[in-house]
Amino acid sequence: MPASGALPDLTQAGPLLHAASAETRAGLLRHARLLVLPPGAMVVAQGAEVEALHLLVEGSLGLRVADDGGATTLVEILRPGEAMAIGAVMLRVPCAVTATTLVPSRLLAIPAEEVRAATARDTRLMRAAMEQMAREWRLMLDQVVDLKTRDATQRTARFLVRRLAAPQGPVEMPEPRIAIAARLGMTPESLSRALHGLEAAGLLRLRGRRVDVPDRAALLRAAGSG
Amino acid sequence: MPASGALPDLTQAGPLLHAASAETRAGLLRHARLLVLPPGAMVVAQGAEVEALHLLVEGSLGLRVADDGGATTLVEILRPGEAMAIGAVMLRVPCAVTATTLVPSRLLAIPAEEVRAATARDTRLMRAAMEQMAREWRLMLDQVVDLKTRDATQRTARFLVRRLAAPQGPVEMPEPRIAIAARLGMTPESLSRALHGLEAAGLLRLRGRRVDVPDRAALLRAAGSG
Repeated sequence: MPASGALPDLTQAGPLLHAASAETRAGLLRHARLLVLPPGAMVVAQGAEVEALHLLVEGSLGLRVADDGGATTLVEILRPGEAMAIGAVMLRVPCAVTATTLVPSRLLAIPAEEVRAATARDTRLMRAAMEQMAREWRLMLDQVVDLKTRDATQRTARFLVRRLAAPQGPVEMPEPRIAIAARLGMTPESLSRALHGLEAAGLLRLRGRRVDVPDRAALLRAAGSG
Repeated sequence: MPASGALPDLTQAGPLLHAASAETRAGLLRHARLLVLPPGAMVVAQGAEVEALHLLVEGSLGLRVADDGGATTLVEILRPGEAMAIGAVMLRVPCAVTATTLVPSRLLAIPAEEVRAATARDTRLMRAAMEQMAREWRLMLDQVVDLKTRDATQRTARFLVRRLAAPQGPVEMPEPRIAIAARLGMTPESLSRALHGLEAAGLLRLRGRRVDVPDRAALLRAAGSG
């Protein structure tokens, strides 16, 4: 057990470990470290070998890409329960993104070779790894559809709806606004206009780093999903 | 062997089958059918179970998504050598996209259960399946970066560069312009303006369904990649 603290409740660590047999899970957790990180900490660098599978337990992780043409942007924000770069872990290939904490965060780091060995032994864990890869592809696919078919206000509304579990209530937006704007493919000014426009339409109330949504269905309609 | 013709040269069927052992590959090919399809033929429907792994041997396959919000768009165009929906095959989950031929096409269809059985036996094929999933994710990631950071002309130039293998030469664009425009996240009118703008700048010559590129490096610079 590392000095950085007791391992957290595993229900927060997402579906990947839960798919493994109890024996596999226990074996992986014996090798796991808990990382307690401030905002702005780099977890994995694009182009580097990935030494550990990272499971986000608390906080937010921003994934950035600098492509071969020199363009750099934030492509995704991971939230608790999600795994980071399972494909690079499984395939031993350089990581395609740079992952940086956007807020204070806690991650479980499991050595990549332990993960590879466990998936080779445990077919349920192997399946879960492929499910995670399929899920990451699907998130990118959804974002491509969003970027091609929805305007800034619709994308903002959709982002909020996805973070809202209940029919109404608060949506936490602890990340820097510039990161959320980049995730949504817009400038911070456009994000601000979109949020204030939705507030003026009675669809939300801005409360600093929190947004209150009185009616999820109405916000969904504003997202072009009515 | 099906009535639709002899199996094609497997070097055209992409890296997936090549990764398998000779025995695995021969076993899969015994179950393969060659599909010879006209333009507009639906290969897989979104939401349906995927009964076969499809390897594109010749032609173009458009992948469309209708999302839960009712938005529909073309997210990707597959070219020869690429595999279709390996994730859905491996995981037995409904296909996330509708795949339709954009031009006359030939595909190898290998029954999904044969593919799953073969990957369970052949670790090299399993690795190749994961590599294919990682590659599909990467293509979506690249598209997200493109959509967020590049304008219509830059995206058009980048699309052409990717289809151009040599430092100069022709780029085939056999697909309907409306499909290419959707792939690039723009209207056909914007695509036309971008192409004519690049031609006016001396970076390409339009020849109907073919574009001649005199200088790949110069076009790359126009793509914001100089």
